Amino acid sequence: MIHTDLCIIGAGPVGLFAVFEAGLLKMRCHLIDALPQVGGQLSEIYPQKPIYDIPGYPEVNAQDLVDNLMEQAKPFSPTFTLGERVDHLDKQEDGSFIVTTSDKTKVHAQVVIIAGGLGCFEPRKPAIENLELYEGNGVTYMVKDPEKFRDKNVVLAGGGDSALDWTIFLSKVAKKVTLVHRNETFRGAPDSAAKVFDLANNGKIDLILSANLKQLSGNGKLDSVTFMDKSKVEHVIETDYLIPLFGLSPKLGPIADWGLSIDKNAIEVDTRDYSTGVERIYAIGDINTYPGKLKLILCGFHEAAIMMHSAFKYVYPDQKLSFKYTTVNGVNSF
Amino acid sequence: MIHTDLCIIGAGPVGLFAVFEAGLLKMRCHLIDALPQVGGQLSEIYPQKPIYDIPGYPEVNAQDLVDNLMEQAKPFSPTFTLGERVDHLDKQEDGSFIVTTSDKTKVHAQVVIIAGGLGCFEPRKPAIENLELYEGNGVTYMVKDPEKFRDKNVVLAGGGDSALDWTIFLSKVAKKVTLVHRNETFRGAPDSAAKVFDLANNGKIDLILSANLKQLSGNGKLDSVTFMDKSKVEHVIETDYLIPLFGLSPKLGPIADWGLSIDKNAIEVDTRDYSTGVERIYAIGDINTYPGKLKLILCGFHEAAIMMHSAFKYVYPDQKLSFKYTTVNGVNSF
Repeated sequence: MIHTDLCIIGAGPVGLFAVFEAGLLKMRCHLIDALPQVGGQLSEIYPQKPIYDIPGYPEVNAQDLVDNLMEQAKPFSPTFTLGERVDHLDKQEDGSFIVTTSDKTKVHAQVVIIAGGLGCFEPRKPAIENLELYEGNGVTYMVKDPEKFRDKNVVLAGGGDSALDWTIFLSKVAKKVTLVHRNETFRGAPDSAAKVFDLANNGKIDLILSANLKQLSGNGKLDSVTFMDKSKVEHVIETDYLIPLFGLSPKLGPIADWGLSIDKNAIEVDTRDYSTGVERIYAIGDINTYPGKLKLILCGFHEAAIMMHSAFKYVYPDQKLSFKYTTVNGVNSF
Repeated sequence: MIHTDLCIIGAGPVGLFAVFEAGLLKMRCHLIDALPQVGGQLSEIYPQKPIYDIPGYPEVNAQDLVDNLMEQAKPFSPTFTLGERVDHLDKQEDGSFIVTTSDKTKVHAQVVIIAGGLGCFEPRKPAIENLELYEGNGVTYMVKDPEKFRDKNVVLAGGGDSALDWTIFLSKVAKKVTLVHRNETFRGAPDSAAKVFDLANNGKIDLILSANLKQLSGNGKLDSVTFMDKSKVEHVIETDYLIPLFGLSPKLGPIADWGLSIDKNAIEVDTRDYSTGVERIYAIGDINTYPGKLKLILCGFHEAAIMMHSAFKYVYPDQKLSFKYTTVNGVNSF
């Protein structure tokens, strides 16, 4: 069991800045994110894209912003559980919560802050019979630790950047890599596509184009994958793993069942402190809604600052909050 | 008369960022500030101090932040009236406003945004009889254009950085510079103080220490200033100008008389759009108040973004606002 003051669900830009604002009030944070890295959409969807609407940055690369927010949070030593989805929230008798993830990690916290962006990004899944049977038993949608695939047979499926990048990377790690894609061309970066064609031409990987996933076989654990090519001929490939990389789509997920007031996939909050209807649960950033709401990162920053002053009373019930400006003595005095 | 969509009172960090947010909605801004430069408190009070609580900046020098905000506003070509205080606000029949400054500059705008920080920084004035008689007639509290003092006799009074810096600067411009200070030592940077003592030792300026302003004389226009030294002896110095630099203190100023709802020197606003009780007038940044308000620059940024979406209807009454993210096509597409 991990013990912390505040459990922040979502390690995107707003969740990361919340660590800093919590730190100024001497509250410590543990962050959980379903993605395998921090940064939320910025790192997952457009790490190399410039952003123009962060105040004080005429232009900033999305990943650089994430790196800066991590640096800004660092003095307050946040801890992280990544690549796990929050599944359960259990209220304790004293008002605190125990949060449980999909991998059964448990976090005990006085306050829960949902900074979940558009929700957790769930992998788009291929339409194959018995898919669930093999999830976790050979089928995986995310490469959290590439070492897991060392000297194994791996089949990847997809045509975007993730499929191309992981094919290139795993070609140096796995025993054999096969990439299956339903089209003749790739959606990903031309440079990555060229590399993948090179690997195929040099016999480093097997590349199967214009083919669709059909069937999974195995006895409790994946043994082989069947594809159908454009001539409607079926092929069977023996493999230890199948990694379908068909993109991610945001889902509110289990949060929808926590008794919060939801309007159009967003959590309704009180603009005085961005609290939800459930005591000790706050929602900040793109996942919340209120009259006038704009889904901008800079608005999430404001919401994080304001809500911390409200959450303080649950972490330090006997103390009066004293507000100090960082400009006077710097961050280390906090 | 200057014509603009939005008249922003206050060119501090929040006023500057408001230009950017307005620009994204195709609204143009004119900014007015009582200080002679943009940046508000950041530039005036602590330009070289690091700030730690701007999201995405683990540390940023106050003046650098101002420069970045100017750069970010630049694509939307804001215009400025600096060194003039806003004195009057006149509602027109069509709902628009004419704003008039202390120097009679007039700005016509559809919407007025008060981003006035702690209010306008008014100079602390020396306690001398008939001071008002000579204000604008030889007595001035701010060096807006140093050329005004070329080949003139100038007396400066004060012991802080402004007094030291302007003494050094004007020693190269004016015919004769006299600096009068009530103590033997200076509050300003030691390096600047050393330079001032050097100038005095080399006969480039007259330095009068442990002396107090006593009297102003002249016939409608300042002719001479009388000081009393520590031995209680009075000295008369003939001069064209007296520049008392005793620091600035924030005042809400004439804004207090515009029929807005004021609570403890701050303007009460509606958190849905940061509008005041008077239609077409908004208040953002440290000058406003609402339940949960924190006087943080980052909160002002949020308020600026939100209020623009409300102000849009007054500038484009026939258009529906369409919200676009800058990340998609950059700033130049706006």
